[in-house]
Amino acid sequence: MVKMISKISKESPLPGAGRADITKFKDGVFQESEDLITAEEPLEIRICSGKSGKCSRFAVTMRTPGEDEYLAAGLLYTEGIVKGLSDFDTEKFRKTQSNILEVWLKENSVEQKEERYFPSYSSCGLCGKTSLDQVFVKGARIQHGFSKVSPSLILSLPGKMHSNQKMFSETGGIHGAALFSEEGTVIASSEDVGRHNAVDKVIGKSFLDGTLGKGHILQISGRSGFEIVQKAAIAGIPVVSSVSAPSTLAVETAQTFGITLICFVRENRFNIYTHGNRVSRK
Amino acid sequence: MVKMISKISKESPLPGAGRADITKFKDGVFQESEDLITAEEPLEIRICSGKSGKCSRFAVTMRTPGEDEYLAAGLLYTEGIVKGLSDFDTEKFRKTQSNILEVWLKENSVEQKEERYFPSYSSCGLCGKTSLDQVFVKGARIQHGFSKVSPSLILSLPGKMHSNQKMFSETGGIHGAALFSEEGTVIASSEDVGRHNAVDKVIGKSFLDGTLGKGHILQISGRSGFEIVQKAAIAGIPVVSSVSAPSTLAVETAQTFGITLICFVRENRFNIYTHGNRVSRK
Repeated sequence: MVKMISKISKESPLPGAGRADITKFKDGVFQESEDLITAEEPLEIRICSGKSGKCSRFAVTMRTPGEDEYLAAGLLYTEGIVKGLSDFDTEKFRKTQSNILEVWLKENSVEQKEERYFPSYSSCGLCGKTSLDQVFVKGARIQHGFSKVSPSLILSLPGKMHSNQKMFSETGGIHGAALFSEEGTVIASSEDVGRHNAVDKVIGKSFLDGTLGKGHILQISGRSGFEIVQKAAIAGIPVVSSVSAPSTLAVETAQTFGITLICFVRENRFNIYTHGNRVSRK
Repeated sequence: MVKMISKISKESPLPGAGRADITKFKDGVFQESEDLITAEEPLEIRICSGKSGKCSRFAVTMRTPGEDEYLAAGLLYTEGIVKGLSDFDTEKFRKTQSNILEVWLKENSVEQKEERYFPSYSSCGLCGKTSLDQVFVKGARIQHGFSKVSPSLILSLPGKMHSNQKMFSETGGIHGAALFSEEGTVIASSEDVGRHNAVDKVIGKSFLDGTLGKGHILQISGRSGFEIVQKAAIAGIPVVSSVSAPSTLAVETAQTFGITLICFVRENRFNIYTHGNRVSRK
């Protein structure tokens, strides 16, 4: 089993954030620096019945640690599972581990709810996994080698991606993803209201076309979360580039699987979070 | 049962987008206008076994219609369920309805996969629902009345929300949500890597505090998708304000449940998509 390689220091001035050494590129100059990064960790929410004393898994969600009780209460309320404070047992919440939260309810109706709330899930890499370890058995590969990409090529990617997005310029409300060859040629490009969907469409098109092996760089319009990097690792894509921020778990996943993670790609600058050796220095 | 009220015209110049009449506010002036809006609809992906001829639901995801086969292929590939093109049956995909896609695989392993991939889901309002109709049984209420909000109050909300976000200014990679009273006082405020999580935290905090009834306006940092509006409808929040774009289904849900949906709230302007009578004209 692959062990996650830590690149994040938790000695951060902010709870819920981590710190990492990064390389900044701006106006043609590379500089070593450090960056504060939003924490992302999975939370398993369990519903427990005060009557039977039994617990049952309700959801696994990627979240920023902190206010987990609020998250669980809000999710159960907006899913219609709790209607009022009287639905809770005397002790509402119990944290058995830092990423497992039990919600104790009075009614013994957990079993009935299971069927209704468990059957499906949204397009997200973690859903349906009982633990992070299971991510690694799905076929994620450690990326070695691959040729270098130049700073100018990286800076050109968001523009190339947007020029393939028909809806973005019209609605301003859609995510984009594009897969590029090492020369910067578009292999596949998609857009979708869902960030993960746009990535799935791009990987799916390339997979069906038999061109996935040529995919060198995945460019996305939004943030680089864990699930995006995980999808790249499974699809064997060695470089992930995004216009916005990464999360702590995305950085650690990229570090572990040999993926070059580049974020905040804007007009004249970007930040390299992991495996910067694939970015040529001129 | 509540019937969805259509506000979206599908006569749009772009496939995958809808058109709606909106009210624009800019520099103190209101103007009737129209807007192109990214389409959002649920897709049910079924895995079918060519051997047994049986299908089983794999996922329900909100997506922008189009390239559904790519989406399904990418999701099954990045979930490790298909490894190569030879895993597919001769006819890979079958569309039984516009929002139901069957994926036909050679192996008779659907039943074994069910247990692994069905047990949980991410923080999202639709997950675990078999159809959109089920949304309406969860306790979503049609919002009547409520006092008006002024344009200047609306314009002040993103700034007030950000001033409550500790991590945003440091990392630039986190979503925010805040619940305001009708006078613009913050009732609850949260941030999270997940958009839906930030909303769940805010609603959960307010629910546990017993202050949910005072929540008049939900401000969010990102886009207004269907699930955000649905959560507001269940929590009885009459106004949803976001700094970015809505989706077609979000607009129709807001229209149906009497929610005032305001998007693209920037420095000096915003767009009103539904129930603009709650916005005072001076």
